[in-house]
Amino acid sequence: MDLATVVGMLSGIACLVAAILITPRGNLGMFVDYPSMFIVLGGTTAALLMNFSIRELAGLGRVLRNAFVSRGISPSQLIADFRRYADLARREGILALERVTGEVKDPFLLSGLQHAVDGLDPDVIQDLMRTELDYMSARHERGVKILRQIGSYGPSFGMVGTLIGLTIMLANLKDIDAIGPSMAVAIITTFYGAVLAYLFAVPLAEKMTNRNSEEMVIREMMVKGLAAIQSGDSPRVVEQKLRVLLPPRMREQLGPAR
Amino acid sequence: MDLATVVGMLSGIACLVAAILITPRGNLGMFVDYPSMFIVLGGTTAALLMNFSIRELAGLGRVLRNAFVSRGISPSQLIADFRRYADLARREGILALERVTGEVKDPFLLSGLQHAVDGLDPDVIQDLMRTELDYMSARHERGVKILRQIGSYGPSFGMVGTLIGLTIMLANLKDIDAIGPSMAVAIITTFYGAVLAYLFAVPLAEKMTNRNSEEMVIREMMVKGLAAIQSGDSPRVVEQKLRVLLPPRMREQLGPAR
Amino acid sequence: MDLATVVGMLSGIACLVAAILITPRGNLGMFVDYPSMFIVLGGTTAALLMNFSIRELAGLGRVLRNAFVSRGISPSQLIADFRRYADLARREGILALERVTGEVKDPFLLSGLQHAVDGLDPDVIQDLMRTELDYMSARHERGVKILRQIGSYGPSFGMVGTLIGLTIMLANLKDIDAIGPSMAVAIITTFYGAVLAYLFAVPLAEKMTNRNSEEMVIREMMVKGLAAIQSGDSPRVVEQKLRVLLPPRMREQLGPAR
Amino acid sequence: MDLATVVGMLSGIACLVAAILITPRGNLGMFVDYPSMFIVLGGTTAALLMNFSIRELAGLGRVLRNAFVSRGISPSQLIADFRRYADLARREGILALERVTGEVKDPFLLSGLQHAVDGLDPDVIQDLMRTELDYMSARHERGVKILRQIGSYGPSFGMVGTLIGLTIMLANLKDIDAIGPSMAVAIITTFYGAVLAYLFAVPLAEKMTNRNSEEMVIREMMVKGLAAIQSGDSPRVVEQKLRVLLPPRMREQLGPAR
Amino acid sequence: MDLATVVGMLSGIACLVAAILITPRGNLGMFVDYPSMFIVLGGTTAALLMNFSIRELAGLGRVLRNAFVSRGISPSQLIADFRRYADLARREGILALERVTGEVKDPFLLSGLQHAVDGLDPDVIQDLMRTELDYMSARHERGVKILRQIGSYGPSFGMVGTLIGLTIMLANLKDIDAIGPSMAVAIITTFYGAVLAYLFAVPLAEKMTNRNSEEMVIREMMVKGLAAIQSGDSPRVVEQKLRVLLPPRMREQLGPAR
Repeated sequence: MDLATVVGMLSGIACLVAAILITPRGNLGMFVDYPSMFIVLGGTTAALLMNFSIRELAGLGRVLRNAFVSRGISPSQLIADFRRYADLARREGILALERVTGEVKDPFLLSGLQHAVDGLDPDVIQDLMRTELDYMSARHERGVKILRQIGSYGPSFGMVGTLIGLTIMLANLKDIDAIGPSMAVAIITTFYGAVLAYLFAVPLAEKMTNRNSEEMVIREMMVKGLAAIQSGDSPRVVEQKLRVLLPPRMREQLGPAR
Repeated sequence: MDLATVVGMLSGIACLVAAILITPRGNLGMFVDYPSMFIVLGGTTAALLMNFSIRELAGLGRVLRNAFVSRGISPSQLIADFRRYADLARREGILALERVTGEVKDPFLLSGLQHAVDGLDPDVIQDLMRTELDYMSARHERGVKILRQIGSYGPSFGMVGTLIGLTIMLANLKDIDAIGPSMAVAIITTFYGAVLAYLFAVPLAEKMTNRNSEEMVIREMMVKGLAAIQSGDSPRVVEQKLRVLLPPRMREQLGPAR
Repeated sequence: MDLATVVGMLSGIACLVAAILITPRGNLGMFVDYPSMFIVLGGTTAALLMNFSIRELAGLGRVLRNAFVSRGISPSQLIADFRRYADLARREGILALERVTGEVKDPFLLSGLQHAVDGLDPDVIQDLMRTELDYMSARHERGVKILRQIGSYGPSFGMVGTLIGLTIMLANLKDIDAIGPSMAVAIITTFYGAVLAYLFAVPLAEKMTNRNSEEMVIREMMVKGLAAIQSGDSPRVVEQKLRVLLPPRMREQLGPAR
Repeated sequence: MDLATVVGMLSGIACLVAAILITPRGNLGMFVDYPSMFIVLGGTTAALLMNFSIRELAGLGRVLRNAFVSRGISPSQLIADFRRYADLARREGILALERVTGEVKDPFLLSGLQHAVDGLDPDVIQDLMRTELDYMSARHERGVKILRQIGSYGPSFGMVGTLIGLTIMLANLKDIDAIGPSMAVAIITTFYGAVLAYLFAVPLAEKMTNRNSEEMVIREMMVKGLAAIQSGDSPRVVEQKLRVLLPPRMREQLGPAR
Repeated sequence: MDLATVVGMLSGIACLVAAILITPRGNLGMFVDYPSMFIVLGGTTAALLMNFSIRELAGLGRVLRNAFVSRGISPSQLIADFRRYADLARREGILALERVTGEVKDPFLLSGLQHAVDGLDPDVIQDLMRTELDYMSARHERGVKILRQIGSYGPSFGMVGTLIGLTIMLANLKDIDAIGPSMAVAIITTFYGAVLAYLFAVPLAEKMTNRNSEEMVIREMMVKGLAAIQSGDSPRVVEQKLRVLLPPRMREQLGPAR
């Protein structure tokens, strides 16, 4: 569970609620308006349907789960594993890596190891893995794009709703009692759009992008590590080649390269 | 028929209509204004004529059809085909591919296969195919550009119309009864521009861009597959080289590489 | 004459005029204001003078002529010509190309052919031609930049004028009769800036950019064609190498590669 | 201590305070509003929690310290050092560099030197160092991203607060005495967001980006210098290769290359 | 003296002054407000101090001088010089270039020539010169960045001032006589920010960027020219290689390549 995401979202909503309540004459009821919800949520959903294929939208659930669930392979464990593989490959040959494929869970690394055991040319394996990474990264970015578009369509339909509210109000301008409340309604639509964008879509999209870059570092370590093993590097050099991808802080925790 | 696009557009309009009707004192008649339509649709059309050549604009129909009609080559079928071609080429030589050219419908793949049968150098074929892909992709992006510019000119002329409405209203400020309705008219123009952008041009442009990237993945598979066959790869390796371009989900559906 | 550009500009202006006239109480006289013109046209001109060198600004006329006059080399003619050159070069040697230099009007292609006849190394010619293309493309983009900056400075000075108008109005707020008209004046300046941008500068800049990319496709065909001839390709292969740059529609019109 | 950052921030606040005080009827008390602080600071913090991982946010302190503390390796000292290393390596061989590793404080340069002493292949060392630089630069940019997002979320929640304030005010429109003060409150939220962005987050983010590019120049000098030493360049050529990265002004201060 | 810059700035200010004076009831005194100046100039200066190092800000004077003073090496003179060098190098060998180093004023070209005379490898010289160009170009862009940030902070602090003015006005809303003038003051701050941006910072930044690209063309000619001489090209080929970087117009003025 990525606590930061959950705590962030809840505390953001709490802040807005508290601010409304401590403002003199403010109450939450003023901020509930059904036509405004209709316009912002309905319009955004409609635009998403036009923007993406059903299959892509169906993947949004998975994208969101990734934003709330923290997961991922530990770089220090990966380095330790690669030292072991390098040691094994040096002593008993590349084919001995077959014995470790049982313990590898990550399908990307697993298929790379299997190609190596199958005797594929190192260049071909590198090419396969990097092609897979490129397309994986592009797919991830397109999943995040759904959130980014929510962050863009939300405020846009907020504005559309404000224009609707203003038009109705101005057409009834003689009814002076109605001005204030209908203006409030017009403004609530923009408020909904802004909250949808800034307390949901935009920060989640950014978190997913950050997650994806972190994952790409891990995958790059796998590609570089396998290439180093295939070119016969010593465990020490393999470790060196992987460590340079990590921040100094994390390297210190790993201790000096053995 | 790409249902998502149609359902999205219709439900978006339905949402706005419903929101107008359930707002107290709102009715649809308030949102019909001929000068505003003139400004937004006329101005946008005029700017498009200046922006694009007649030939490019005439292609907009084809671009839109692509947004509403879902089509495309299935990646799993393509992989199965390439396994077959690879098998054939291995057993009977590249020239045997001539027999399958009759069944290939896609002109891009067909011309690649024919070049291979004609004995063109693999490097030359790769170069021809990639050059064609580059220019194809640039042309697609220019077709989508028309939609993007509608999404940009629409709100711009919406604003121009609002300025016209405001100027007329302010010049007649003494006539207090006229303020409300003419302000409403001024705002309707911006409303038209926003609807044209967010329930038509922008999401359709994004859908076309997504479609184009999916098509490019398919075409890249064709280029990579043909190169693999020409370099004499086994059907298994050919399949591997194509599978890495696909999302894990789709690969699972294909079953393990045979 | 590029009719689309002319028709677009005239019809855009006609739309705005018509919309003003059919709006109740609207008349064209309300939209004529000399201080506003001063601010938008004067300010934009001043900023352009600061932004560009006199020599670049003097080239704007040429840039604009290109936007209104449609011209350009036909790709199908170019392909036919290159088939002929390839045929000639194959049968009588590269030097025989000297005979066709008289008929070539385009200076870029002409200098490439002359280098080939002069016996320059194919790599050197490719390098010369591509360097020229890179710098040509950068120069074109800088010519278009003037139009883009008009599209940016116009609305900016429109806003400056609005601020001037608002300040004057607010300093005279007690004179209630003056509010409406001076507000109108303030808004007209923004209107002028928007029209300058959206019915002149922005679409023309986009058209020029489109033209430039089309021209670059033609020039790329020249570079690729000459390289193919120098490497001794058959007329059929030369044609193939040029055709892949064209859209399928245009290729169909050309008929199958002979 | 980077005085410019401190002086800039303090003088910016002083300017705003002075401007408030010298404006007729202005006093600082008008600009203190607790709900507004709640919305801007609380909302921004909430969005940051959703946007970044706890570990990244915890690094913000370090990022900020870098913005206020000026530090860094002097290029002229680095060039003098590299001349010395080059001289040593030429006269006594690469292994003699082991003697200077004790005086090198920078861990990046130190590890490069140790790799050279360990006899790693120059290409491998270059590859290790450049990979480390790429990932270092990406990490730095992600640290700066926190500041950039504060500069983006601050004004966004300022706008959210304004919408809240406007809604409350409009719902109480009949109470005319309340309009002015509650509008002021609505506007103060935007004011807080703007100050957070323009007198804190945006300029600090830019300073960090500048610092990072300067650091990258220094690190590039280390990579280029080590490569030059390993390829056996004379001290004079090593110095030449490092000097070209510096501005002419700094080179003049160094005197002519010896 | 770059007259265009000076004339542009003066005529821009004249336009605004004239527009203010010819607007009924407008006078220049309305546009002088000390708190507004404080906020815009003080705030922008403060943000610049936080954004850049003192050393970078101190270089702004030099950057500005370049915007007002037109200078630069003539391409036609450079081509003539390179023909001469090529001729000399062909007849008497590369070392004979030593004789012309006395007449070369540009330090970049001079150091390249000296390296050639010193017998450095052509690849090393190319590498040195291109590295220097890359870092030179990055430094120029960072100098221009100061102007760009003035163009961004100016309007930002204009908005901050407007928010301050609005808050003070709204807190004193009962004093109806004060509304107009204090609103005017609020708007003047935005006006100052816009003028600072659009009649000073933005066009000057663009002019500097244009100048830098022109200078980069000249420097690229130097790199290409020296490489051509070192590879033993004839004066005619050297000239050809430099001419392709120039616009056709300028090439015509040079006459045909001899």
